[in-house]
Amino acid sequence: MKKNESLIKQHERLDDLQCRGYHIIQDPKGFCFGMDAVLLADFASGNSDDRVIDLGTGTGVIPMLMHGRGKGSHFTGLEYQEAYADMASRSVAYNELSGDIDIVHGDIRRIRDLFPAACFDIVTSNPPYIKGNHGLSNATSPKNIARHEVAVTLAEVIDAASYLLKPGGSFAMVHKPFRLAEIIRELSAKKLEPKRMCLVQPGTKKEPNMVLIEAVKGGGVQLNIEPTLVVYDEDGHYTDDLLTRYGPLYT
Amino acid sequence: MKKNESLIKQHERLDDLQCRGYHIIQDPKGFCFGMDAVLLADFASGNSDDRVIDLGTGTGVIPMLMHGRGKGSHFTGLEYQEAYADMASRSVAYNELSGDIDIVHGDIRRIRDLFPAACFDIVTSNPPYIKGNHGLSNATSPKNIARHEVAVTLAEVIDAASYLLKPGGSFAMVHKPFRLAEIIRELSAKKLEPKRMCLVQPGTKKEPNMVLIEAVKGGGVQLNIEPTLVVYDEDGHYTDDLLTRYGPLYT
Repeated sequence: MKKNESLIKQHERLDDLQCRGYHIIQDPKGFCFGMDAVLLADFASGNSDDRVIDLGTGTGVIPMLMHGRGKGSHFTGLEYQEAYADMASRSVAYNELSGDIDIVHGDIRRIRDLFPAACFDIVTSNPPYIKGNHGLSNATSPKNIARHEVAVTLAEVIDAASYLLKPGGSFAMVHKPFRLAEIIRELSAKKLEPKRMCLVQPGTKKEPNMVLIEAVKGGGVQLNIEPTLVVYDEDGHYTDDLLTRYGPLYT
Repeated sequence: MKKNESLIKQHERLDDLQCRGYHIIQDPKGFCFGMDAVLLADFASGNSDDRVIDLGTGTGVIPMLMHGRGKGSHFTGLEYQEAYADMASRSVAYNELSGDIDIVHGDIRRIRDLFPAACFDIVTSNPPYIKGNHGLSNATSPKNIARHEVAVTLAEVIDAASYLLKPGGSFAMVHKPFRLAEIIRELSAKKLEPKRMCLVQPGTKKEPNMVLIEAVKGGGVQLNIEPTLVVYDEDGHYTDDLLTRYGPLYT
């Protein structure tokens, strides 16, 4: 079956997600998904009957990858930037997943106007990593909104996750290690107890540049830290561990 | 010069610390120091003019190793168990370090009766790791006091560290990764901001079994996570990274 190419705009490109034949529409000049999103989709818990929401979904890559891996029955991608919400919606339509994935254009800070409390089993987020907007010449450019906390802060993302989760539900996030202490404090303040964590290092002797963390709403106090994931071996090739995480994409 | 062998009791043994010729007295049937203490002495910050205290010093290994590495001008080892305080004092005397290292027999929970506030630059601790005394047939045996929180809790150790530190002083601790969220919360509650952290894994694919963490009294919010330290390579030998940490001992 020939898919609907008319969904792709002229300045956009179609990338193969290497997952059940799914493709994703991206703007090469805009914010494109990275390894962080793929690792989060691998790391996040999710069962086949879970209702899942991704906060700040961008191109919609996380719901699509989690759908491909059977980590949920229904997915919502919430996106603040209208152009990305539109692009993500067209990707969902292109893959004929509109029955399972909703893309919602809306503001994380107004989560209480958008959804009832405690209506999701799983919340995911790959939020902006960088605090403030210092030194930005154009703080509200689409890339800067995705990368800097100009439209939403860490605390606001965590507050929204806590509001949306059922008791016992999980919030999985990828972020920068230098913010780990803040992350743990903000999660704790919203009754989200960190239960799983994994550092990601570019090389065996390189400082970690990502942290994957999962917290459970009302969970007990015990954090399981997984073996640190090393991305490249000493020859500059992907490690087996990294390929295993990407592996399920290639099915 | 023949050292004073009469300081060693019959049931004890003398171990070479592989550091400036220092030796340590240990009771083979009691609690002996482990890799955690050696890694903490390597990880902890300390300049040659710093006043340093080790909370729950046991055999006194941490002050002795830090002294050997020039990480302080004067060291205090505080120990709750009289037999260990006595053993540590005899090790200090054996090495003729009594002018630089004081061993104090006392209770971390009564820190305010023992020392004035804000009188140390550096606090270290390798505290009991295990919460509570569940399942212990003899909760107050010397080994159990060293391993379980029967005589002091994580929160009490951190409270004492915060009390003892000058503004800008550092508290370095080794602990179990599963308690990391609690550690960060307790540090934060006492105005100790986590600034450096390093996970220690037995192997590249094994879960970390130690976390080294350093917090600064009144420090700014930014945590530098160091590359995860792997102890054994795939052939079961110590990794170069581990040997580098132990390395300064062999001088």
